[in-house]
Amino acid sequence: MDNIVYLIPALGALGLVAMAIKSAWVNKQDKGDANMQELAGYIARGAMAFLRAEWKILAYFAVITAILLGWSGTLVEDSHPLIAVSFVIGAVLSALAGYIGMKIATAANVRTTQAARSSLAKALRVSFTGGSVMGIGVAGIAVLGMGALFIILYQIFVPEGAALTGVEMKRAIEVLAGFSLGAESIALFARVGGGIYTKAADVGADLVGKVEAGIPEDDVRNPATIADNVGDNVGDVAGMGADLFGSYVATILATMVLGQEINAAGDNYGGLSPIILPMVIAGLGLIFSIVGTWFVRIKNETDSVQGALNIGNWSSIILTAIASYFAVTLLLPETLTHRGVTFTSLDVFYAIVIGLVVGALMSMITEYYTGMGRRPVLSIIKQSGTGHATNIIGGLSVGMESTVLPILVLAGGIVSSYWVAGLYGVAIAASGMMATTAMQLAIDAFGPIADNAGGIAEMSQLPEEVRHRTDNLDAVGNTTAATGKGFAIASAALTSLALFAAFVGVSGIDAINIYNAEVLAGLFVGGMIPFIFSSLAIAAVGRAAMDMVNEVRRQFREIPGIMEYKAKPEYEKCVAISTKASLREMIAPGAIALLAPAIVGFSFGPEVLGGMLAGITVSGVLMGMFQSNAGGAWDNAKKSFEKGVEINGEMFYKKSEPHKASVTGDTVGDPFKDTSGPSMNILIKLTSIVALIIAPHIAETPHGAAEAKETVEKKTEIVMSAPHTDKH
Amino acid sequence: MDNIVYLIPALGALGLVAMAIKSAWVNKQDKGDANMQELAGYIARGAMAFLRAEWKILAYFAVITAILLGWSGTLVEDSHPLIAVSFVIGAVLSALAGYIGMKIATAANVRTTQAARSSLAKALRVSFTGGSVMGIGVAGIAVLGMGALFIILYQIFVPEGAALTGVEMKRAIEVLAGFSLGAESIALFARVGGGIYTKAADVGADLVGKVEAGIPEDDVRNPATIADNVGDNVGDVAGMGADLFGSYVATILATMVLGQEINAAGDNYGGLSPIILPMVIAGLGLIFSIVGTWFVRIKNETDSVQGALNIGNWSSIILTAIASYFAVTLLLPETLTHRGVTFTSLDVFYAIVIGLVVGALMSMITEYYTGMGRRPVLSIIKQSGTGHATNIIGGLSVGMESTVLPILVLAGGIVSSYWVAGLYGVAIAASGMMATTAMQLAIDAFGPIADNAGGIAEMSQLPEEVRHRTDNLDAVGNTTAATGKGFAIASAALTSLALFAAFVGVSGIDAINIYNAEVLAGLFVGGMIPFIFSSLAIAAVGRAAMDMVNEVRRQFREIPGIMEYKAKPEYEKCVAISTKASLREMIAPGAIALLAPAIVGFSFGPEVLGGMLAGITVSGVLMGMFQSNAGGAWDNAKKSFEKGVEINGEMFYKKSEPHKASVTGDTVGDPFKDTSGPSMNILIKLTSIVALIIAPHIAETPHGAAEAKETVEKKTEIVMSAPHTDKH
Repeated sequence: MDNIVYLIPALGALGLVAMAIKSAWVNKQDKGDANMQELAGYIARGAMAFLRAEWKILAYFAVITAILLGWSGTLVEDSHPLIAVSFVIGAVLSALAGYIGMKIATAANVRTTQAARSSLAKALRVSFTGGSVMGIGVAGIAVLGMGALFIILYQIFVPEGAALTGVEMKRAIEVLAGFSLGAESIALFARVGGGIYTKAADVGADLVGKVEAGIPEDDVRNPATIADNVGDNVGDVAGMGADLFGSYVATILATMVLGQEINAAGDNYGGLSPIILPMVIAGLGLIFSIVGTWFVRIKNETDSVQGALNIGNWSSIILTAIASYFAVTLLLPETLTHRGVTFTSLDVFYAIVIGLVVGALMSMITEYYTGMGRRPVLSIIKQSGTGHATNIIGGLSVGMESTVLPILVLAGGIVSSYWVAGLYGVAIAASGMMATTAMQLAIDAFGPIADNAGGIAEMSQLPEEVRHRTDNLDAVGNTTAATGKGFAIASAALTSLALFAAFVGVSGIDAINIYNAEVLAGLFVGGMIPFIFSSLAIAAVGRAAMDMVNEVRRQFREIPGIMEYKAKPEYEKCVAISTKASLREMIAPGAIALLAPAIVGFSFGPEVLGGMLAGITVSGVLMGMFQSNAGGAWDNAKKSFEKGVEINGEMFYKKSEPHKASVTGDTVGDPFKDTSGPSMNILIKLTSIVALIIAPHIAETPHGAAEAKETVEKKTEIVMSAPHTDKH
Repeated sequence: MDNIVYLIPALGALGLVAMAIKSAWVNKQDKGDANMQELAGYIARGAMAFLRAEWKILAYFAVITAILLGWSGTLVEDSHPLIAVSFVIGAVLSALAGYIGMKIATAANVRTTQAARSSLAKALRVSFTGGSVMGIGVAGIAVLGMGALFIILYQIFVPEGAALTGVEMKRAIEVLAGFSLGAESIALFARVGGGIYTKAADVGADLVGKVEAGIPEDDVRNPATIADNVGDNVGDVAGMGADLFGSYVATILATMVLGQEINAAGDNYGGLSPIILPMVIAGLGLIFSIVGTWFVRIKNETDSVQGALNIGNWSSIILTAIASYFAVTLLLPETLTHRGVTFTSLDVFYAIVIGLVVGALMSMITEYYTGMGRRPVLSIIKQSGTGHATNIIGGLSVGMESTVLPILVLAGGIVSSYWVAGLYGVAIAASGMMATTAMQLAIDAFGPIADNAGGIAEMSQLPEEVRHRTDNLDAVGNTTAATGKGFAIASAALTSLALFAAFVGVSGIDAINIYNAEVLAGLFVGGMIPFIFSSLAIAAVGRAAMDMVNEVRRQFREIPGIMEYKAKPEYEKCVAISTKASLREMIAPGAIALLAPAIVGFSFGPEVLGGMLAGITVSGVLMGMFQSNAGGAWDNAKKSFEKGVEINGEMFYKKSEPHKASVTGDTVGDPFKDTSGPSMNILIKLTSIVALIIAPHIAETPHGAAEAKETVEKKTEIVMSAPHTDKH
């Protein structure tokens, strides 16, 4: 094996060193007075309690799944019992990524509050550095973990001199797929559980606190306020971290599976280049994300926080793109052929650029549909003037409309990256898009840290200006949360397509023909899965929020003196309700995602399973965008009332009738945008990974891929040549 | 041509005779006092004014499309300029079906009010006979029109002794497809336009009348009340009639296209049997629907109206099933082969039974999800207790969940009908399901007639007991409306699959491989179309309702004495607003449905278009069920408050806070269940028909179908044999 491969874990390790330095810096900052520390302590303990409870449940799941996987690995030539170990490593590292994020976020929140007492610049620096620790940590663990595991598996499975397109290498990568399954399945539970936790607490706290008792958000008298702040860490930090860790790993894996099919014996790295390229790009993206974080600085109170984040983001994207050019041209041979499509190394670079462009466009479109002052949000504001119902109709309509442009961009991205470099091009475009995950996640995680900082400021009754500074950061955090979701769903869609292609190769089918009645039935059933998944997720939030409402009402009733600050509410009871509800309710959707593809695959074979995956992907992407964007737009329509809005020539402010209607929309949007919407990403990736893992077991040719691949190559040539000769 | 073919138009004509008799009976009934007649006159004139205005616009559309079609018919061997004539006939007959329905509904409404002054039994008889006129008329026109046109086209195109599997017969059926395109495109505009009309008026009337002015629904002082009642006729009668006319015709056509591919030279009818079978079944279903109407009777005030309708419905279904058995065994040869699948005539009968079972199950599931006193509606009621937002979350969650069972039933129906008789089996299952359309439509159309009758009773301030009787009928009408929608979407899904199969045959492609990147992109874009279509439709309702609100507010302000019954509101201004808005807003969604498949087909070829159709179908079926069922459940959750509901041990009635929350849900559900939801049926069928019409132009082999079909047969044999040898 060429030495260049060792570069990958080295880059990952370098990232972790940078993370440790940044983490030490955050922990060195002043953590404020005793009162602030006490409140922050509640939050940190609540968050850790949730993580521990979640891990306990997931440990059972992981052990059982590992045993099943290990056993299954003995059944076919293309797999190996070691897949169980690989799975466990993926699961543990995913949990570790969530843990690091939670740890730093619950340390950075109170320190951001304290920093906000002196200046906005300082508050941004603390909160964003906290976010960076999370982002760099997640990406670093992924690159180091996958890189090292790949090296080990290569040493175990691939004998000296074996052709890399052969069954040995295929087996090594199939075992590596276990890592991705581990990462993604933990991500699913973390995202769904965290999403239910945070929104149950949020909705419950708002319904009784704001609406019934008339106290402000994050008021220390509200028994659910600690649970609400814990929720930000559990859902938006740990859940999001595990989600992007899973995406990152899945994208790299899918590209490696396709890369393994390419005969690149002519490169200078023993033919390894198309396989390791996605990991190399990830490593470079990690390093340039760290570089990008240096540019996120402001000087004065009036400087634009969003502007600073944009500069950091764009510099990391551009630097990664430039570095990719060199990586691609240095690593890959002049020309490559994959499943009958021939392309040059430069074409691969173009595919990476397409991925970066698609990601950027998706973020911009999402910002348009959810940003304040734009037509969509303004239309919802206007429709709040005629009541709750028209506000809801407006938001639903905006959410549905917001699928159009992203789908066209996505379709354009799929087709163009396919045109330049075949299915490998589609996969590498996804890898390019995901390369700067560390930066994306830093920007994403900064939001909930600032949100928490504001909560602590409010609960500690700090001066107005402190809350003002944290609100400024929080508002930017809301926008970055929305654009981050647009980015995440786009990457999930491209990744799924790559996994889909990988699945076809491994399962040895030559086509997924939707005109076959059984495949069409699979497509219908697949399309339905995001609907039932969303239904379960939002219903869970509704139920848990009702429990929360009843508990808060009970405390107000039974503990005298809460409203006069004389008695302390029993915060931990509310924390326990959210924890219990989220852990109970995450099981059913998780089980659907894991079992549905397995059941269909083993009962009806790979082609029907392929139809089902296509159905899940299409419907999941649409439902994800619809729900996330509708929720984001409702949220900002409500926020617009803080500064006052004009409806038919009249000004309306907080507590007006139209504002109440906008609060209804925001509350409906909460589970949409933070529970069910973002879970769609994981749903579509996880089902594809499950399919890929079971593919060797349900393959049409008993021997598996080796022969099947040839058939695929031949057949695809026919399928693909038809449109090409017609139109190009 | 065998004489049996003449039986088909004869059955249609027989139906029309029955319709005329029933219509005369309705018109002979007492139409009440002068005041009632005046109000009914407003409604009838408003409805006719809308129809005329709509026809004027559609005439332009029809002429332009006819010219394009005629010209296109000269370009390929598989078509003919006569397709333009066929299109115009379809369009005119569809408009005629809507006209008949509107005419009888606006005559039956006031007569039902008058009948309700004496007894429930009489009121049911008048309103249901009115509905029957509509149902029998629509089915009769379809059977007579298609049957007669088929005979004429056969005489023109098919020379004596030509093989019916040859290009001549194919051309005759392609020209007949123009009839279906005409019917379905008029249906789209009628459904969308009517849906916007009725809900703009309904929402607008409710928001100002009920909420702001505090006057009851259908109060004569509300300027929008006439528009609201006109809307019932425009949307629920004319729109629904055109919709089911289109479905009925499309289903028959799709089965004929597939039947033409079957070599049935061994039958006793010159090989015509698989082609004419769907028309024969439709004719039989028409006759037994008429028989079924005789059973819809009650005697006493306390008899169950729903029970009477059920008896009528089930007797027509069972009689049609029995008759189908004889038709199938008498007409078809012992064994048939279609695209490589061989099956017996008895298998075809089983497919019909599968269709009937699927239709019945779909209705039952829909009833469960939208019926009062069941778990889904009760859960929404409970969630109304914590406010508007949780009511909305509850309804959305129920709507999403309600897709699960119908999709599983549908997938089971597709696969099992395919197993028994190949793709012809799937198509004939749809035909079986649609056979009793006359009865289905009679039950459906009876609802809005009763609703109107209640409106007239309220406006004329008739005694309590009259309104009580019409309310009884109206409540049953709400349930039948919901189950009718479940039935309509199921039939649309099966029909689309049949059209899909027909499209594959005519376009000469051998597979629609979603693992091809371009096809997958098509699938994504197709999946998005129901979202933008729904978005446009519900946004249109929101906008038009706001116009209506402003106009009603203006009248209350500027016309003194309305509230004291001293001045008459300007009803016609509100009618004009709804008319104008609906005609303006129906253009964009209609254009999308007609143009999107044409653009994609001509730009990217038939396989990508096939992917797009699959995306539209899957996403359209899901969105249709989700929206229709959520709307129905919200509606009945609100209605439950009339008798009082228990939430956490406390009773709540109308005007309580939970009731207000339930009104919000109902208002959101209005455009869901009556505008965008039911439009999904037409969207998925119309796009498939457009694809079928353009198929010869974009066929992969220049000569078109003749050679292509052979390839299809060979290839499908491979695709289909794989799962069969594996599992059966």
